[in-house]
Amino acid sequence: MYQPKDSSKSPRFTGPRTFMRLENIATTNDVDFVVMGVPFDTAASNRTGQRYGPQHIRDFSVLLRPYNPDQEINIFDYCSGVDYGDVDVIPGNIHRTYDHIVRALEPVLDKEIIPVMMGGDHSITLGHLRAFAKKFGKIALVHFDSHGDTWEDYFGEKYMHGTPFRRAVEEGLIDTNHSIQVGMRGPLYGPEDIEDARDLGFEVIPMKEVRKIGFDKVMERIHARVKDKPVFVTYDIDFLDPAYAPGTGTPEVGGPTSYEGLEYVRGLDGLDIKGFDLVEVLPTYDSGEITAVAASSVIFEMISLIAMKKRAEQERK
Amino acid sequence: MYQPKDSSKSPRFTGPRTFMRLENIATTNDVDFVVMGVPFDTAASNRTGQRYGPQHIRDFSVLLRPYNPDQEINIFDYCSGVDYGDVDVIPGNIHRTYDHIVRALEPVLDKEIIPVMMGGDHSITLGHLRAFAKKFGKIALVHFDSHGDTWEDYFGEKYMHGTPFRRAVEEGLIDTNHSIQVGMRGPLYGPEDIEDARDLGFEVIPMKEVRKIGFDKVMERIHARVKDKPVFVTYDIDFLDPAYAPGTGTPEVGGPTSYEGLEYVRGLDGLDIKGFDLVEVLPTYDSGEITAVAASSVIFEMISLIAMKKRAEQERK
Amino acid sequence: MYQPKDSSKSPRFTGPRTFMRLENIATTNDVDFVVMGVPFDTAASNRTGQRYGPQHIRDFSVLLRPYNPDQEINIFDYCSGVDYGDVDVIPGNIHRTYDHIVRALEPVLDKEIIPVMMGGDHSITLGHLRAFAKKFGKIALVHFDSHGDTWEDYFGEKYMHGTPFRRAVEEGLIDTNHSIQVGMRGPLYGPEDIEDARDLGFEVIPMKEVRKIGFDKVMERIHARVKDKPVFVTYDIDFLDPAYAPGTGTPEVGGPTSYEGLEYVRGLDGLDIKGFDLVEVLPTYDSGEITAVAASSVIFEMISLIAMKKRAEQERK
Amino acid sequence: MYQPKDSSKSPRFTGPRTFMRLENIATTNDVDFVVMGVPFDTAASNRTGQRYGPQHIRDFSVLLRPYNPDQEINIFDYCSGVDYGDVDVIPGNIHRTYDHIVRALEPVLDKEIIPVMMGGDHSITLGHLRAFAKKFGKIALVHFDSHGDTWEDYFGEKYMHGTPFRRAVEEGLIDTNHSIQVGMRGPLYGPEDIEDARDLGFEVIPMKEVRKIGFDKVMERIHARVKDKPVFVTYDIDFLDPAYAPGTGTPEVGGPTSYEGLEYVRGLDGLDIKGFDLVEVLPTYDSGEITAVAASSVIFEMISLIAMKKRAEQERK
Amino acid sequence: MYQPKDSSKSPRFTGPRTFMRLENIATTNDVDFVVMGVPFDTAASNRTGQRYGPQHIRDFSVLLRPYNPDQEINIFDYCSGVDYGDVDVIPGNIHRTYDHIVRALEPVLDKEIIPVMMGGDHSITLGHLRAFAKKFGKIALVHFDSHGDTWEDYFGEKYMHGTPFRRAVEEGLIDTNHSIQVGMRGPLYGPEDIEDARDLGFEVIPMKEVRKIGFDKVMERIHARVKDKPVFVTYDIDFLDPAYAPGTGTPEVGGPTSYEGLEYVRGLDGLDIKGFDLVEVLPTYDSGEITAVAASSVIFEMISLIAMKKRAEQERK
Amino acid sequence: MYQPKDSSKSPRFTGPRTFMRLENIATTNDVDFVVMGVPFDTAASNRTGQRYGPQHIRDFSVLLRPYNPDQEINIFDYCSGVDYGDVDVIPGNIHRTYDHIVRALEPVLDKEIIPVMMGGDHSITLGHLRAFAKKFGKIALVHFDSHGDTWEDYFGEKYMHGTPFRRAVEEGLIDTNHSIQVGMRGPLYGPEDIEDARDLGFEVIPMKEVRKIGFDKVMERIHARVKDKPVFVTYDIDFLDPAYAPGTGTPEVGGPTSYEGLEYVRGLDGLDIKGFDLVEVLPTYDSGEITAVAASSVIFEMISLIAMKKRAEQERK
Repeated sequence: MYQPKDSSKSPRFTGPRTFMRLENIATTNDVDFVVMGVPFDTAASNRTGQRYGPQHIRDFSVLLRPYNPDQEINIFDYCSGVDYGDVDVIPGNIHRTYDHIVRALEPVLDKEIIPVMMGGDHSITLGHLRAFAKKFGKIALVHFDSHGDTWEDYFGEKYMHGTPFRRAVEEGLIDTNHSIQVGMRGPLYGPEDIEDARDLGFEVIPMKEVRKIGFDKVMERIHARVKDKPVFVTYDIDFLDPAYAPGTGTPEVGGPTSYEGLEYVRGLDGLDIKGFDLVEVLPTYDSGEITAVAASSVIFEMISLIAMKKRAEQERK
Repeated sequence: MYQPKDSSKSPRFTGPRTFMRLENIATTNDVDFVVMGVPFDTAASNRTGQRYGPQHIRDFSVLLRPYNPDQEINIFDYCSGVDYGDVDVIPGNIHRTYDHIVRALEPVLDKEIIPVMMGGDHSITLGHLRAFAKKFGKIALVHFDSHGDTWEDYFGEKYMHGTPFRRAVEEGLIDTNHSIQVGMRGPLYGPEDIEDARDLGFEVIPMKEVRKIGFDKVMERIHARVKDKPVFVTYDIDFLDPAYAPGTGTPEVGGPTSYEGLEYVRGLDGLDIKGFDLVEVLPTYDSGEITAVAASSVIFEMISLIAMKKRAEQERK
Repeated sequence: MYQPKDSSKSPRFTGPRTFMRLENIATTNDVDFVVMGVPFDTAASNRTGQRYGPQHIRDFSVLLRPYNPDQEINIFDYCSGVDYGDVDVIPGNIHRTYDHIVRALEPVLDKEIIPVMMGGDHSITLGHLRAFAKKFGKIALVHFDSHGDTWEDYFGEKYMHGTPFRRAVEEGLIDTNHSIQVGMRGPLYGPEDIEDARDLGFEVIPMKEVRKIGFDKVMERIHARVKDKPVFVTYDIDFLDPAYAPGTGTPEVGGPTSYEGLEYVRGLDGLDIKGFDLVEVLPTYDSGEITAVAASSVIFEMISLIAMKKRAEQERK
Repeated sequence: MYQPKDSSKSPRFTGPRTFMRLENIATTNDVDFVVMGVPFDTAASNRTGQRYGPQHIRDFSVLLRPYNPDQEINIFDYCSGVDYGDVDVIPGNIHRTYDHIVRALEPVLDKEIIPVMMGGDHSITLGHLRAFAKKFGKIALVHFDSHGDTWEDYFGEKYMHGTPFRRAVEEGLIDTNHSIQVGMRGPLYGPEDIEDARDLGFEVIPMKEVRKIGFDKVMERIHARVKDKPVFVTYDIDFLDPAYAPGTGTPEVGGPTSYEGLEYVRGLDGLDIKGFDLVEVLPTYDSGEITAVAASSVIFEMISLIAMKKRAEQERK
Repeated sequence: MYQPKDSSKSPRFTGPRTFMRLENIATTNDVDFVVMGVPFDTAASNRTGQRYGPQHIRDFSVLLRPYNPDQEINIFDYCSGVDYGDVDVIPGNIHRTYDHIVRALEPVLDKEIIPVMMGGDHSITLGHLRAFAKKFGKIALVHFDSHGDTWEDYFGEKYMHGTPFRRAVEEGLIDTNHSIQVGMRGPLYGPEDIEDARDLGFEVIPMKEVRKIGFDKVMERIHARVKDKPVFVTYDIDFLDPAYAPGTGTPEVGGPTSYEGLEYVRGLDGLDIKGFDLVEVLPTYDSGEITAVAASSVIFEMISLIAMKKRAEQERK
Repeated sequence: MYQPKDSSKSPRFTGPRTFMRLENIATTNDVDFVVMGVPFDTAASNRTGQRYGPQHIRDFSVLLRPYNPDQEINIFDYCSGVDYGDVDVIPGNIHRTYDHIVRALEPVLDKEIIPVMMGGDHSITLGHLRAFAKKFGKIALVHFDSHGDTWEDYFGEKYMHGTPFRRAVEEGLIDTNHSIQVGMRGPLYGPEDIEDARDLGFEVIPMKEVRKIGFDKVMERIHARVKDKPVFVTYDIDFLDPAYAPGTGTPEVGGPTSYEGLEYVRGLDGLDIKGFDLVEVLPTYDSGEITAVAASSVIFEMISLIAMKKRAEQERK
């Protein structure tokens, strides 16, 4: 049973920083979830430095405590988890990196452990989806982001952080009928930037519509879309407004507050989530760790969902 | 026809940074709008460094794309524009600087090109208004700010960044009957700080009233006030709340979010706008480029209005 | 009669920085309020550096002007005040520091002057309460914070910044029947973290409930709780959302905006407030002085309340 | 008798920050020296923000202790001194600022108190020299800098931070026959940039020559030049290499280390120094307070010289 | 004839920032040198962000003036030059980037214009050498760096910023008999890290030997090695000590000061230099623009060499 | 056998950051040295935040490679080592912290493993010396620092970061006859600040004398003083000049460069060193990781000494 170091004994600022002070060990024994970093940023088309995202999140996450008052659950009453460390990415080589991601996830998924991946630029999600599709077949996707990331290519390159979901559809990894994108906004190259995703089969709720229909309706539509399918949740930190997450590659005015950003995760309770990622944290542009607070808290809510799922399973028995 | 460099060919981080990657050329041929900097900060009464404002905005603006999904328009379908460079300001000499501003604007206004000026401290707007009044006669003013900037003087100096609108009225540049100020708030020297502007003939909607009557009502009153008069729009970035624009000279708690700040610009569609400025960006106090994101986006909305005006003109034909 | 230096004569950036440009003099003559720093951070369990909080607040506060348009009062029409300087804290020795705090407050309270204390970590409030209880007997407490700070101990230490209110109850300093905590949120060690405060006798409105019942109801409950008792107001800057106050020791997503944070202070008008503190400003994590703006403005509202109390007293006569 | 607050009683981080923790009082009674700020930066031709220089120096200076082991003297065994505060500069108006400087210095010089002025951009030295010349007649000048600051004008402006010494010669304030400039280097507009100063009558030792002849020879030439004339010492912090003083307006590679920079001041012992200034500290570009350490230490050595002069006078009796 | 904008007319902080305020135009007409950026960082094995290097250098370079007092030459008396802009790099694809570099350099080299390239990580030099070898055949190399960059591969990748010179030798681009590396130091993977370069045919003077033999001897050996061969000069900013150039990917204690770093460039006068690069500037880790000052100054000295070569050619006629 | 992770396989930026990428495990089996943090800063009299020192050093140290070219040794050819993690310090309670330090060191020293401790403020060294004296009896001390840290007390407190060596002498932990302090400089409270250490029995070479006699002579005197006694080496990072180590609590102009700072460690080869500490790294004031580079490199040299001792022992057999 793995749980965070006891912060009432050793202060939270002591020791090498792991996520939430969990043990740093790449084990698949006795764990319900693993937190794993993918410090890859080769596919960033503009700002770079997302390779430092996982450590930046870890740095702040040592302040997290185990009890979630919003969900009324103590994570470690139901779960065991570790900081699995980082995937051995290959800076400059996205294809070998994808292989490493898939290889790293295999033993984890084989044992039905739920991974929470920390990016890294958004290109890494294609690696995640390959691993999940291998295990679960075409998987549903819930995607929070200010961009759809379904472009054909960028500078003639097909594997960039703006293209993973088109590639994933092409590779047959996603069950688009049960997939949904939420939060798109900001200046685009053209109206097709959003229509493209719809053409690929995704349901899309751009931010403009989110504002119109409101949070409850959005959550309803997510649940209605995903149903009981196995689902992967990908969360680009630029989903949040820049005031709440300046430290990212492509900030866009008009996103949710970090509080609202947590609510979207909390609202996913009940879905059959097989894995998560949180991407595009870029420490260079963070200030006062504002982005790290938000990102750590999002992951905390993701893990809370895992605990709630476990609790529900236990109660069902 | 001038439009931004193609970012699908050359990454947005390449080359000297111009606004939105437009060509840096001081031409009045074949352009509908020009973006021009006025890096002047001699009249800043407290924090200084606004001279770096224009470049700070340019630095972030390279991320802007041409299509505005909120207004459903691709700017460059209707407009041609350039980064005209900066006015040759004279640090330390506001009067010679005003002359340079007027001289720089003349050929632009002569050809009915719409300038978007980037400050610089707010004193520069007096220079802008001189140029516009010369061309258009007394001009209406829409003024977003947390301060009215209608003081008599500062340390006995009459030309400071807190006095331009009193001077402008005295010089007969503004049609106050059709002018309006929005957003005033924060500690003052006395209640007269707001009353003074009213005495000068402005309509004033302090932030306290904005909160009471709401966005729609504010926009209604702006349109009702300005009517079909030629109008200049001046936007002090400190209109926004400090969490959304820390990088400014005189931040005041309680302003709009950056999203709301964009909505105010979008709502101006339909007015006969002859020019814009966006002032008081102070990079030293920015963090994670939060302020640069907001300022760039405000200017993007301003240019979108220009494109919409062109579209409307074309459709009218 | 002490009031701020005239900023229309000497620019606000001149001279050593005192709070609001008030005179730096440790006098109890002819003053209605004093602003006093307690730069102590020995009891910070995680992030440290709150010792620089008072100076950070002073640094920004020179921008504050005397007239409060929200409360429609010019502070110095009714009040005289000084920057009393800082208590001679003893870094590393909390008990001697408490003695110094009590000794520093005694002559102030003896003359019914209202002190506004700037922290420093939250442990200092125990010192404040000792001084106030000595003068006024058990005192009511209004406590804005994202944490209840009623733990038994931390690493086996009983005097830390997470324990002052339990200690204060044990020492009989607080009239808990008339005391209330507002804003608690964020990951906890367990549900007891909030229940403990209730067990000690406090009314507690966690943030979750604040969101449900709304601002007006919260203020109503505060007034209903405190009634006409002499009351001390303690304000932890982490009450605010991290986007509005990143510079603090334990930021928690989901707090009020800084505007709302000021409204809570404004709403206290009418209570019989004997003193205030504002704690946990941590400049190292501030960015663009966002936190300093908020903290200075909170104190400005506190002093405005003092002026309003004076005005009410005068009007009553 | 004024001396620093006792740091063994109140920690050095307590209280509003004055230079070296001296009392902040504008007195000319019982003082041998005063430290005075001139937070003026209107005449900065490129980087601006020198208005925050005096406070930045004060911020670090609280760490200074009274005994100078290099000169083997405890300053306050021989001297009394205060932080006189800042001159009421007029941002944007150099001529009124000069008047204020002269007026501020008059009572100080009248009582033969030695002022140590903290800039501010280098234009302020013209103000200082006007005041000193009024009192002492043409005064000798020892000038440490990487630039000669003897240009005719800048953008057509005659009063900029690159022109004060030409103006001073024109106004007859300097006894150039006994004046010397040391340290000039870096890219110039032309060879005349150095020759000009010689034409005006200054002896000039550019950095290239400093490197050739060495420290001892430089000091010898300074003493040989100045002789027993009353002298003013002006020290531009950009005299130091940028690694030791990045926080300045015009850094030039190839200057002395900060240790060497102190040696140059120490070596002035024996001259009849009537006043000092230390200019061009620009906090925005400082990092880790490196520049503040250097600037504070330079001033500490200046004050040590004053103490040594007092000691020598006492011993002479 | 292209030369910098006149800074006595328009302040150096005005306008989009080009190198040294030269015109930004990709012309090969009437120019003797071009400054060109290669904002590529895909091959950085550890810290990334060198893509922002060229702009960071440009940002500071606007302070450079045309006359070099150390070499006693006004660059633009003998030279015309432009800021050619940046190569259209392809983030994530080093091979296509190499093609773009070669294609960008061809027209420049064809007209015997001397390019000064600004990196980017050190991998780009392989691109430069390909272009130069195509034009000049095997070229001599003078290489200032703290690392030899002759590794076989990194994570199994052959094209990284630690491998370009091995690749260049393998591709037959370098005349190793006339090539020399200077400055190697810091912890290594093994002694072979330095021996490898010697095995490839380079002369190597590690920093330890530099300290022993001194500057003059080093320059002598460089001249003796290169002789009259056409030579390319590559300068990794981490050649300098971290105190003088913190903003780089792999800082190593014990390098030259920035002054010494300029002297090494000045000492190259007389060699038949065909081109230069300055690489590995990483703004994220710069502070107070210390690194930008150094890098700009190094390039200034490179351009001065070009001017001196022109002058020598003119004098020879 | 413990050695760093292979950086040719997994990039150095991957995974939670441990010192030099060594395994984070608190073992005393199969190790020759351990690196251990003591993140304590309660005893800092002025600047605080040294609790983040160990992690800051770890953050940079991942760049260190195993081969030391200056000493011509690959550390892990002779040594096995781990990152032992941090001592469970008690913020606010120095006495319990001392107990924890002693308890943490006991099993390490019992097995003759050489610990390298990372502070933390300098007060922690008293804890180290207690543990070493318990094991080895009175131990010799080599102390590099800009301050002697032998004060009687501070604010009446006897256990502060300026007092540990007086306490250590009083407790009989140090063999002062074989102990030496090097590098003292900067403003003092009085001449006794240096004489006190001599009175306690230390040999003291202040920086002024270091400059006079030179490096070789200093090293000679250190060896002559220590002889073959078991010795502890304590290294305050403020020994270095502020340009090379701005990130520290009490920077003093005039120290060695970081290169020279490493030479002092290298020169200790041959002494019978039982342990090391490196203290007073304060990340808040670091910039561009300049201080982290220096501190990591100092520790690298310390570990190299351990390897050289092992090699010498092996060769002796």
